[in-house]
Amino acid sequence: MTTDIKSIYLDNNATTRCDPRVVEEMLPFFSEQFGNPSSIHSFGSQVGAKVREARAQVAALLGAEHDSEIVFTSGGTESDNAAILSALDLAPERREIITTAVEHPAILSLCDYLKKHKDYTIHIIPVDKQGRLDVAAYKAALSDRVAIASIMYANNETGTLFPVEGLAEMAKPYGILFHTDAVQAVGKVALDLKNSDIDMLSLSGHKLHAPKGIGALYLKRGTRFRPLIRGGHQERERRAGTENTTGIIGLGKACELALTYMEHENTEVARLRDKLEQGIISQVSHAFVTGDVRNRLPNTTNIAFEYIEGEAILLFLNRMGIAASSGSACTSGSLEPSHVLRAMQIPFTAAHSATRFSLSRETTEDEIDYVISHVPAIISRLRALSPYWDGDKPRADAFQPDYA
Amino acid sequence: MTTDIKSIYLDNNATTRCDPRVVEEMLPFFSEQFGNPSSIHSFGSQVGAKVREARAQVAALLGAEHDSEIVFTSGGTESDNAAILSALDLAPERREIITTAVEHPAILSLCDYLKKHKDYTIHIIPVDKQGRLDVAAYKAALSDRVAIASIMYANNETGTLFPVEGLAEMAKPYGILFHTDAVQAVGKVALDLKNSDIDMLSLSGHKLHAPKGIGALYLKRGTRFRPLIRGGHQERERRAGTENTTGIIGLGKACELALTYMEHENTEVARLRDKLEQGIISQVSHAFVTGDVRNRLPNTTNIAFEYIEGEAILLFLNRMGIAASSGSACTSGSLEPSHVLRAMQIPFTAAHSATRFSLSRETTEDEIDYVISHVPAIISRLRALSPYWDGDKPRADAFQPDYA
Ligand SMILES: Cc1ncc(COP(=O)(O)O)c(C=O)c1O
Ligand SMILES: Cc1ncc(COP(=O)(O)O)c(C=O)c1O
Repeated sequence: MTTDIKSIYLDNNATTRCDPRVVEEMLPFFSEQFGNPSSIHSFGSQVGAKVREARAQVAALLGAEHDSEIVFTSGGTESDNAAILSALDLAPERREIITTAVEHPAILSLCDYLKKHKDYTIHIIPVDKQGRLDVAAYKAALSDRVAIASIMYANNETGTLFPVEGLAEMAKPYGILFHTDAVQAVGKVALDLKNSDIDMLSLSGHKLHAPKGIGALYLKRGTRFRPLIRGGHQERERRAGTENTTGIIGLGKACELALTYMEHENTEVARLRDKLEQGIISQVSHAFVTGDVRNRLPNTTNIAFEYIEGEAILLFLNRMGIAASSGSACTSGSLEPSHVLRAMQIPFTAAHSATRFSLSRETTEDEIDYVISHVPAIISRLRALSPYWDGDKPRADAFQPDYA
Repeated sequence: MTTDIKSIYLDNNATTRCDPRVVEEMLPFFSEQFGNPSSIHSFGSQVGAKVREARAQVAALLGAEHDSEIVFTSGGTESDNAAILSALDLAPERREIITTAVEHPAILSLCDYLKKHKDYTIHIIPVDKQGRLDVAAYKAALSDRVAIASIMYANNETGTLFPVEGLAEMAKPYGILFHTDAVQAVGKVALDLKNSDIDMLSLSGHKLHAPKGIGALYLKRGTRFRPLIRGGHQERERRAGTENTTGIIGLGKACELALTYMEHENTEVARLRDKLEQGIISQVSHAFVTGDVRNRLPNTTNIAFEYIEGEAILLFLNRMGIAASSGSACTSGSLEPSHVLRAMQIPFTAAHSATRFSLSRETTEDEIDYVISHVPAIISRLRALSPYWDGDKPRADAFQPDYA
């Protein structure tokens, strides 16, 4: 134990640090080159070229065929909403939507609204206890009554990857638009959209070291689209509003950097994640990793520590200078286990304690060693306080999870 | 004439320079305090308080009663779209909308879409040759079939102010929601929303020295609302998506600054605008100011120079280091006179030449003197090239405007 005040950030699936190189790239466009991309005068003469460069940088990270397939938005949530609502508006006779039980609220609350207020039928495809999608249920839901299938690329809580390329291919014969929320995947998983059947894909800047408030929607060339936000001619009439030039330029730079770190992410970051996970699991009893451990993001581990409260774990971690998360940041504040863990049927006593550690390229070996050395003591201390715990095991009369 | 390369920015209605004090305020929130406002760990511990401060700063500039009446959005266009679509969604039996012929495309293209694709009836209230609203036509359109009246506070091209407080009051008895696009007014006109019947008001950061990509929608307490963008619980469930914390903090600071400059804007900036206008008009024949000169924004003048092309004027101004605009930035790129000038029935030969000079608190007396000393020569040179011009007057056979 040390008295140094540490600052270890393992909450990168919630949001990332804006890379200082990204900030540097943006800076001249606040107060010097502050014109609109379309303005002809010297106050904006460089902006148009920089926005074009940014679009190419985003397209490159996605493996898109054309830069014009990138539409800049205000973030992942807007991209998700725009994708779904466009599909519905274009095919009013198709009254069904396919999605999954573990999507982000940006998809699920919209679907909930569409069901309640617009009479849509929502097929919510379940997952198994490892968080893997029920592909048979997905197949069974496909029909020409479905306007859009929206299936996330990677889950934000567990990192579990879904086989979206294959799912997109299956949807095609039915004329179903295929959208994927890839907010957690972009920058961590190599993408090659030009060789896929994915029609639309959402990404968010602040998950890959760009600022908050900028994102993009990939729209494969030829995909019909109706804008969510109407007005001026920006973004080829697909998203109106004065362009967030600094955000766009920052996102472009962040995508360029992400491409250069892609290998690092999948070797070094994955190695540190595995080390952290094994370091904890090997020292703590009644702890297990949630999600599909063979098929997940390289930076994420979500560990359930049975018989204690996730919020208490976070508090103790925070006191040791470690930032992590219980479930997704968006649902924090509530004491319900997250909808993702419930969909996976993680037993109640475990779901409550699930703690997500999400690394980034900035995570160091020293930080991981420090976390490994502190987590077991924190868990022991909390279990000592738990009414369900007795010495080094659960109390005999405590609820026994059916799953471990 | 001087050989110094000048940089005089008189296009502030298109977009403003981000105030360096605003950038400074934002900077720590990119790479140091980069957490979400809701995160408990030290990486975001100050963010929540700063976002609350920003909300209070915006509320103060608007004269709003409660900070919670402010919903942060990605800009003016999103706010406009959100206001209208919420009103329609909440009152599906009301199939009419009232707006004006001179609104920004953020309102007009949305209304156009609603008319064409959703069968709404749009009452487009006309203006007279000075750009003043036809209040009798507005009154005649009011009924309980109308869901929302959306009337801009100030026109972006001419600066003309509409009497929105009174219009809001008239709408009330019919249960019509009243929205105003105040994107050009906020920061230039003192507002006191707590004592008005305005239900919703849109503003955009980049028009008041905050960055692009951030804006707000004012929602008077008690106004029912359905979000345009659904997902997480941000903004009290009125606008989902991870908060654009840097943008919000920047907008807050910009609003604080705008309040301190409000008097300056309405005395000093207005004086410089008047000086510029008189300096030009007194030296150039066949030039006149468009819009309601007795009732307009303090920073805007829109001058028509008959018998020449606005684009050519802009080019020549640009060569002299002066940035201005022909009509609104959003419509530039097309050679049509703007819909605003057409609605005012400005004769064709004049509408084409209308040039907007929009000042800001950063505009100096020297800059205005420089512009006054150069514009007459530019106009003379261009008229010498015009097929409609002969020496110092229009050719006898040139089209004669019926209005001057
Ligand atoms: C999977 C997923 N989708 C969507 C979002 C929403 O993105 P944003 O916060 O940029 O709106 C998030 C993050 O919050 C996410 O993790
Ligand atoms: C009157 C008016 N409304 C709306 C807008 C749109 O605002 P934004 O560009 O922030 O979306 C503008 C400016 O472009 C405007 O001048």
